[in-house]
Amino acid sequence: MFQSSGKYQPLAHQLERVAPAIIDMDCFSRVETNGGAFEQVQLLAGENPNQAVRTFTKPFREAGIKTHMLDRALNALRMYPCPSDVRRLMYKVKHAQGVDITRIFDGLNDPRNVIPSIRYAKEAGMTPQGTLCITHSPVHTVDYYATLADTLIEAGAEEICLKDMAGIGRPTVIGQIVRRIKEAHPDIVIEYHGHIGPGFSVASMLEAARAGVDILDTAVEPLSWGKIHPDVITIREMLRADGFEVPEINMKAYMQVRTLTQEFVDDFLGYYINEQNLQCSSLLIGCGLPGGMMGSMMSDLQGIHEAINMFHRQKGEPEISIDDLMVKLFDEVAHIWPKLGYPPLVTPYSQYTKNIALMNVFNMERGGERWQAIDEKAWGMILGKNGRVPGPVAEELRTLAEEKGLAFTDADPQTNYPDDLDRFRRMMDEEGWDYGEDDEELFELAMHEPQYRDYRSGVAKERFLEDLEQKRAERAALRGTTPEEVRALKRAAWTAVTAPASGQILWEINLEEGSAAPQVGTAYRRGSCLCEICPSGGYREPVTALVGGRIREVVADQGAMVRKGDVICYMDDDEESLPAEEKPVGSALHRPEEQPYSHREVLNPSTRMGR
Amino acid sequence: MFQSSGKYQPLAHQLERVAPAIIDMDCFSRVETNGGAFEQVQLLAGENPNQAVRTFTKPFREAGIKTHMLDRALNALRMYPCPSDVRRLMYKVKHAQGVDITRIFDGLNDPRNVIPSIRYAKEAGMTPQGTLCITHSPVHTVDYYATLADTLIEAGAEEICLKDMAGIGRPTVIGQIVRRIKEAHPDIVIEYHGHIGPGFSVASMLEAARAGVDILDTAVEPLSWGKIHPDVITIREMLRADGFEVPEINMKAYMQVRTLTQEFVDDFLGYYINEQNLQCSSLLIGCGLPGGMMGSMMSDLQGIHEAINMFHRQKGEPEISIDDLMVKLFDEVAHIWPKLGYPPLVTPYSQYTKNIALMNVFNMERGGERWQAIDEKAWGMILGKNGRVPGPVAEELRTLAEEKGLAFTDADPQTNYPDDLDRFRRMMDEEGWDYGEDDEELFELAMHEPQYRDYRSGVAKERFLEDLEQKRAERAALRGTTPEEVRALKRAAWTAVTAPASGQILWEINLEEGSAAPQVGTAYRRGSCLCEICPSGGYREPVTALVGGRIREVVADQGAMVRKGDVICYMDDDEESLPAEEKPVGSALHRPEEQPYSHREVLNPSTRMGR
Repeated sequence: MFQSSGKYQPLAHQLERVAPAIIDMDCFSRVETNGGAFEQVQLLAGENPNQAVRTFTKPFREAGIKTHMLDRALNALRMYPCPSDVRRLMYKVKHAQGVDITRIFDGLNDPRNVIPSIRYAKEAGMTPQGTLCITHSPVHTVDYYATLADTLIEAGAEEICLKDMAGIGRPTVIGQIVRRIKEAHPDIVIEYHGHIGPGFSVASMLEAARAGVDILDTAVEPLSWGKIHPDVITIREMLRADGFEVPEINMKAYMQVRTLTQEFVDDFLGYYINEQNLQCSSLLIGCGLPGGMMGSMMSDLQGIHEAINMFHRQKGEPEISIDDLMVKLFDEVAHIWPKLGYPPLVTPYSQYTKNIALMNVFNMERGGERWQAIDEKAWGMILGKNGRVPGPVAEELRTLAEEKGLAFTDADPQTNYPDDLDRFRRMMDEEGWDYGEDDEELFELAMHEPQYRDYRSGVAKERFLEDLEQKRAERAALRGTTPEEVRALKRAAWTAVTAPASGQILWEINLEEGSAAPQVGTAYRRGSCLCEICPSGGYREPVTALVGGRIREVVADQGAMVRKGDVICYMDDDEESLPAEEKPVGSALHRPEEQPYSHREVLNPSTRMGR
Repeated sequence: MFQSSGKYQPLAHQLERVAPAIIDMDCFSRVETNGGAFEQVQLLAGENPNQAVRTFTKPFREAGIKTHMLDRALNALRMYPCPSDVRRLMYKVKHAQGVDITRIFDGLNDPRNVIPSIRYAKEAGMTPQGTLCITHSPVHTVDYYATLADTLIEAGAEEICLKDMAGIGRPTVIGQIVRRIKEAHPDIVIEYHGHIGPGFSVASMLEAARAGVDILDTAVEPLSWGKIHPDVITIREMLRADGFEVPEINMKAYMQVRTLTQEFVDDFLGYYINEQNLQCSSLLIGCGLPGGMMGSMMSDLQGIHEAINMFHRQKGEPEISIDDLMVKLFDEVAHIWPKLGYPPLVTPYSQYTKNIALMNVFNMERGGERWQAIDEKAWGMILGKNGRVPGPVAEELRTLAEEKGLAFTDADPQTNYPDDLDRFRRMMDEEGWDYGEDDEELFELAMHEPQYRDYRSGVAKERFLEDLEQKRAERAALRGTTPEEVRALKRAAWTAVTAPASGQILWEINLEEGSAAPQVGTAYRRGSCLCEICPSGGYREPVTALVGGRIREVVADQGAMVRKGDVICYMDDDEESLPAEEKPVGSALHRPEEQPYSHREVLNPSTRMGR
């Protein structure tokens, strides 16, 4: 459930703490421990993913709970294709690290991308779970999914997962797919993985259960619901009322998991979770985008929003709200999706499709045309470089490709990515890096080269901590609660008095009582002397109050060294509010040229005013 | 859907705007227009509820869409019992105001409280909908609900509503109840009203639909999901995929409703909506509390939290978090609910039960005992004054009642509330108030006397606006005003001095003390030289003060590169305020053409002014 909840996932020391509580809940037969983005985000946080996986899987295996991971078939654990020797190594490494099952999915549902992984996983001793990426379109019928399941099972998949990543599978259809597969393959374990996003997935789980599904993916607060998974409590209660035998949940342990997870969220995960992730939305049905994309999509939208409105302003047209822009984007996705051949909207094809739609909206809003800016990766998807899109590509895109001299292909995508592990072995050797237990360090380098290098150099950790620091400061600023924030706010309303010269600040010279900076609230008329600055030469330069008012904050204390231009203090700019009797006293009294200083001399006019 | 979304509901002028868009959605056969809290919160907002109801029902009736209201049987539109002549008048008034159907519920499911209302509603020409308050307990079986439906239908109910106000009805059970009623009464219209809160209700709707339900209550963003109702889009898509014929939704109109509702939320409704209302939570299953209560419950908890922790601190015990306290309260509700005889947790019995649990937690946390503080209303519920609780009251409470000298009763609750309308007629006469069209003003006084008086005197409006003002200020403070915002405000009052050319800014050339930008407050007469800009060629272009006044903010520091048109600094435009002695000094002194620069030359006139 951490997988879908934001950019980062808990770190090894946190996973180690939460695992026993998850085990104590006593209701899970398997737990998703890693894969998908897990390894990469550990690197991005400056942590060793291998250690994190071993740490997290160990307690579950000891408790007899199966662990499973998510992998992207041809893309393995990243967003772009992987040589087959690296894919093969992955399963060996992950099995050695304690992972039992791997959920192998291809975003296009192209069996050519999945089947080799099924073979590699079996060779490595893992249970390969063939995955159907669920979406809702005229080509994604029950027959389509049943046939795909047949193909994957025939190729060796021991389990089948219905991965309903956008949660738009209709409950009835989910039930029908499960029933068809169970009828044809009664011994195959079927798991349903559904995101709640547009609200179907509780009903989908009931339908799946009645159709014979074996495992349902659920979550625990605070990461259940919203755009993530239904909560295990609700699913258990629903199934029990329908006559299923379902394990009890140890609620004390549930609350422990909840408390620990909340602690991790408060610690750092929460800074990378979009608030919208906590809410359902039926608007996701029309476009079919996975809810987990909302965060990055909203920041994309913010990026183009101002540019679009600048254009509208120049044209004297009404501006568009960010909300209306979001709806336009959803409509555009719904419009172009059939034309792209209905690629399932899952990573990375959800991003590619969204990117094309985003640029279309951007250009069309500014008077331009659709399809003006399709990036290389998106073209790759259209042309078949990543595998076959499920439906036919629209004529207008075929024509456009021809005009651009781009060729469609039906070659097995893997053929473009020859074995490459030896090159990474040489890199490790050159760097003097150990291949690690079970070659796991070699694998990390080969899978995520730039991220792995940043992790090893310490740059990743540094960058992560810096970013986190900034996120924390921003959050605090938004809340308006830190002393720094309050001070900055107050200062913004005052007038800064800057040093007219460099030197030591003398607010007063008072040998009897000691010298000090004035109290906050001390009043000065415009033109009176605030303090003096003594450059090294012994000469004293007076600092004249150029605004009248009261001292609000002293920045440079008595005796402090300042450089010309430094802020000495902040004053309000409100001479009118000064009481009448203060005014004559404070005014123009202490001009150095008028009155020589003595040991008893007090520079601060207010000190006198008070007497 | 507004009903469940917070304290207030939209005002008449807002309802008038949103109604046409709801009609244009072209998918609703009926719309909940009023009742429940609607009338009272209109009064609290200083508005006339009669006008609001008439305004809102009119367009729906004209469009052939039925309107319906919610009423609390014995309690009518308030939280405590109502004389029967006032109950009877309500249906006459509401029918005259354009309401077709009334959903009559009793929080205890006691038919004695509901049946007279069925008769009154029919007399007035309304369609009475008998309501089953759905909850989940050993006494709330399918048989229990089927029998209750039989009783209400026999008494004249023309429709039956399953009011699943906490959303904890299990989908399978909801289906079974609907099926049983439909089998026994094929011609009775059945409506299912379910809150999503703990996540069941989408599945419940599918089960209800398959069992023959006629109407499903849904909502529209931004008030769908969370603890409110499922969104109409999701329910429609789910049913369509299951083979039902369901009307199309005009999505353009949907988006209009969404935009307008968001506008109302931003205007004022949102200040009274608890954020938690936007999220599902499975923790509500254990205690069975309706999600709509979360807001008031959290503020209750905050109220006792500090007192409990003060006690713990004094005892040297660890403090308890608000989250853990919430869980304790949920557990306590689950513990006491059976002992109270399983009153359905709906208004006002959800409040009574929660209040007892809250005081129990409060006292037990502080070393005291359970049941120490049961208030009079809660005792009334236990003793049977409001009707029969569904299950037996626990022995320990019977004993406690005896000790306190409290007697249980099985009398018809209405007998304690004799007819009283004449008294209100006399009040109206004394005040010189008109009874209003169809006696609707008389009815409002009789139903909500104190609130109606505050509305008439204008106190309600004043109080509402004051509270809203404060809420807005609090929200703004919580959001935190950024230093940028404060600065922007200040800048708006000043005059921006922009660069007449591109180049490097020289405020002064002072080789001895170093050069710096002028201090804030430095005065310039109109026409004097502010600074110079050095383009790459070495030539210096003077920047002349085009307004006279003081520097308020330096934007371009000494040596900064600026582009033509950039803001260099901000000045006030207040030459008149400059002291007489400063004026000659600052004026036209440093025009480069008048005075050649030297190493000691100071461009900044203020440096001289101080001496």
